[in-house]
Amino acid sequence: MPSDDHHPGAAMKNFELPEAFYGITAEKYSHGRSNEDVVGQMLQAGIKIVQYREKEKTAMEKFKECLTLRSLTRRFGALFIVNDDVALAQLVDADGVHLGQDDLPVPQVRTLLGPEKIIGLSTHSPEQFQAGLVSGADYLGVGPLYATQTKTDVCPPVGLNYLAYARAHATLPFVAIGGIKAHNLAEVRQHGAACVALVTEIVGAEDILGKIAELRGILESVPQLKPI
Amino acid sequence: MPSDDHHPGAAMKNFELPEAFYGITAEKYSHGRSNEDVVGQMLQAGIKIVQYREKEKTAMEKFKECLTLRSLTRRFGALFIVNDDVALAQLVDADGVHLGQDDLPVPQVRTLLGPEKIIGLSTHSPEQFQAGLVSGADYLGVGPLYATQTKTDVCPPVGLNYLAYARAHATLPFVAIGGIKAHNLAEVRQHGAACVALVTEIVGAEDILGKIAELRGILESVPQLKPI
Repeated sequence: MPSDDHHPGAAMKNFELPEAFYGITAEKYSHGRSNEDVVGQMLQAGIKIVQYREKEKTAMEKFKECLTLRSLTRRFGALFIVNDDVALAQLVDADGVHLGQDDLPVPQVRTLLGPEKIIGLSTHSPEQFQAGLVSGADYLGVGPLYATQTKTDVCPPVGLNYLAYARAHATLPFVAIGGIKAHNLAEVRQHGAACVALVTEIVGAEDILGKIAELRGILESVPQLKPI
Repeated sequence: MPSDDHHPGAAMKNFELPEAFYGITAEKYSHGRSNEDVVGQMLQAGIKIVQYREKEKTAMEKFKECLTLRSLTRRFGALFIVNDDVALAQLVDADGVHLGQDDLPVPQVRTLLGPEKIIGLSTHSPEQFQAGLVSGADYLGVGPLYATQTKTDVCPPVGLNYLAYARAHATLPFVAIGGIKAHNLAEVRQHGAACVALVTEIVGAEDILGKIAELRGILESVPQLKPI
């Protein structure tokens, strides 16, 4: 277990989040399409990190689905992250887990996953961001920036000021999340997000490949970010 | 991972369930008393196996509570089993996990926990019982025998015939569960249950020590079971 060094996993591997988009499953908002179908389209569109987040399925259903998605993401050279469930992540050989503030603590999860796996941690305030930087996580979530329908247990929107704070203080990669859509993507990028998670905007798009092309076009229209 | 041998964990350690009663937490039905308080009374009354089952708490809340209960059960020389959550069981050094039919598969969970930890598996039919016997589980749950209020996702009562079936075919220890109370305990014992799980009957009792003494008295009034 980590003792002196606050972030041994993160420090050792210099993890970087892939640029631009972070995909997250939400079958409920996918208009009847399976996660395999939707994730397949994300990957074809060049997304390099996908998180499996399904709260309402049984562990057995999640296990079977994650085996399929693990194989699919591997074929495309993309990272596969499992939300919350550490044992599930281990059993399907995911690249890592994403934890919330109310999930198992990062240092303890690190003892189960070892130094090589990726641990992401959601943060919702400057205090949580600072704690996250020394928690042993490899990257942080920053949000929810706007109101969102996909998480029912989440706190109120934290706004763009918190994103600017994260950008100014980041010593780890972070991903902006929560209600991000084509119409607000430019301001999210302008406030410092190199990596942006979109849920319903992608999984709910009629034409997922077209939607991701549209989103890339928006990013090209705003000034590029300097590396952190 | 197990290959030729269908139940390496179980076969190696010849696990036996403690006689008589298997306690399970249910804070919602504990009349405002904490799980620590209620489990403490179970242990004082001589219960030697306690399962932590709380569906509505966050992982962080469960983690903190399980650390306390692990320490408490250890002090009384009792087994501590965590429902469903394999990572939680590992992090608090529980003696094992109890899985349902929709949870992660036993052989995969065994790869995470190793041969020494206990894996319990709920079964609800003769087919599931037979599959459970060769699953690698160390003990099986048999039920729900009667209607129960503590599990909302459970199947209809399976009845005493299934319990008699389990008794006749058991090559692993099993625990009878589901709606068992003082008034039906004698018939549960008469149908072959050496180990009986009671939830609300114990956690909801005004006088837990008195209730467990009453339950022991009922068992003494019926013929003893021959070992399986």
